[in-house]
Amino acid sequence: MTSPARAKPAVVLLSGGLDSTTVLALAQRQGFHVHALSFRYGQRHEREVEAARRIAARHGVRSHTVVEIDLRAFGGSALTGDGEVPRDRPVDAMGAGIPATYVPARNTIFLSYALACAEVRGAADVFIGVNALDYSGYPDCRPEYIEAFERMANLATKAAVEGRRLTIHAPLLALTKAEIVRLGMSLGVDYSLTTSCYDPAPDGEACGRCDACRLRVRGFAEAGVPDPVRYAGAGTGR
Amino acid sequence: MTSPARAKPAVVLLSGGLDSTTVLALAQRQGFHVHALSFRYGQRHEREVEAARRIAARHGVRSHTVVEIDLRAFGGSALTGDGEVPRDRPVDAMGAGIPATYVPARNTIFLSYALACAEVRGAADVFIGVNALDYSGYPDCRPEYIEAFERMANLATKAAVEGRRLTIHAPLLALTKAEIVRLGMSLGVDYSLTTSCYDPAPDGEACGRCDACRLRVRGFAEAGVPDPVRYAGAGTGR
Repeated sequence: MTSPARAKPAVVLLSGGLDSTTVLALAQRQGFHVHALSFRYGQRHEREVEAARRIAARHGVRSHTVVEIDLRAFGGSALTGDGEVPRDRPVDAMGAGIPATYVPARNTIFLSYALACAEVRGAADVFIGVNALDYSGYPDCRPEYIEAFERMANLATKAAVEGRRLTIHAPLLALTKAEIVRLGMSLGVDYSLTTSCYDPAPDGEACGRCDACRLRVRGFAEAGVPDPVRYAGAGTGR
Repeated sequence: MTSPARAKPAVVLLSGGLDSTTVLALAQRQGFHVHALSFRYGQRHEREVEAARRIAARHGVRSHTVVEIDLRAFGGSALTGDGEVPRDRPVDAMGAGIPATYVPARNTIFLSYALACAEVRGAADVFIGVNALDYSGYPDCRPEYIEAFERMANLATKAAVEGRRLTIHAPLLALTKAEIVRLGMSLGVDYSLTTSCYDPAPDGEACGRCDACRLRVRGFAEAGVPDPVRYAGAGTGR
C-alpha cells in the first residue's frame, strides 16, 4: 500500500454492484485516494445507491458524491421504468443483441460527470468497471468506446489544456465474471455489501433471473466462491 | 423550407442566449424538426431557462426538455456560485486564458444528454452553438473537441451500432459575434427574447460589463444592428 502522503486522487464510478466495487478496491490497492461517484437516475429501486453508500463507507473513500440525474426525461430503457426487465436469458445469448436494459448514453453521461469531478478534485485518473466480455451487447462498454472517450476528455478540460492528461482506467474490460470475483476476493472485497439484481424484491432479495443475476451467479459458481447475496427461490446456482 | 413530412428530427442545445437561439433558427431553416434541450445547473439566475422557454415556444419546436443537473456538487466555477464573475475585461483579452466562468466539463455533460435525447428521439443530428473565435479560452468550444466528441458518440450508442451515424453540428464555430448577429437577423431571430449576461440585475437588466455582455455589445455594434436587450448604466455601446 502507498502511504497517504504519496497517494494520488482518483475518481471511481461506483454503482454498488460487483464490478465497480472490485474496481474501487483495486484503485485503492494501487495507492489512489478514491473520490467515489454514484448516480441516482430513476432506477426502479434505491438499493443501488444504498449499497454504494455502504461500500464507500467500508472502504474509507476520501469523498462520495451521489449525483441526481433524470434519464427518465428521455425514456427508452427497461432499467428506467420503460418495459420489462428480461428474465431467464441464457448467459451466452446476452451478448447477441443490445439488451432492453440499455440506457441511452448512460456511460457517456456517467463519464462526463466523472470528468467534471476529476477536474475539481485535481485527479488525473478515472476508474470504471465496464466489462466487454460478458456484455458486448452494450456499445458503451467496448474498449474502442473507452479509448474514444479518453481522447475526447483530453481535449475537453482546463486540466487537459494545462497538461494534466486524464486516463480512463477500465481494468475489468477483458476479465470474465469469475476472474473479477477472484480478483475481488484477493483484494478482500466483501461482496455481501454489493447488489447486482435489476429488479430485487422489496426486502432486497435478488430475483436470480435477470441478466445481471444470471451473470453474477455463474461468475461466483465458476470462481468456486459462495455468493453471499440472497436469491429468491431455488435453482440459482447457490 | 422543407415540408413537415420530409423534415428530420434534430436535437438543439438551447441556453437562451444569442448563439444557441441563432443555431435553433438555422436548424429549422435547414428543415429539421427541433427537439430543444436546456439545462438548469445551479446558475446564479433562472433567467436563462425562462428565456429558453420563450424562445422554444416562439419557434414552435417539436419538444423542449429542461434537464436538472447539479454541477454545484463539484463546484469550481464563478457561474455556479464559486467566485466572482469577471467584469470590464477587454474583449481581445478574453481568449488569452481560461475564464473563471468556465464550468468543468460543461459542454461534455450537455452533449452527453443531447446524445441520449437524440437516441430516444430518433435524431441523427445534434446542434450546439459553440464559438471558437470569440471564446478560445474554453477548451470545450474548440473544433478538435467537437470532432472528438462526435467520434466518441458514434461508438457509444445503440443507434450508432445499428448504423445511424450521429453528426454534431457547430455552425457558429468559425463566425464572429457580428457574423452571428447578421446570420440571426437574416433568419428572423428576435434577439429581444435572448439573454446573455452572466449576472443580470433582479429586474433582468444586463450588467453590460461581464465577458458575455461585452462580447454581445461589440457583436451588435460591429453588425450595425441595435441590441434590443436593456443594459444597466451607460457606455455599453447601445
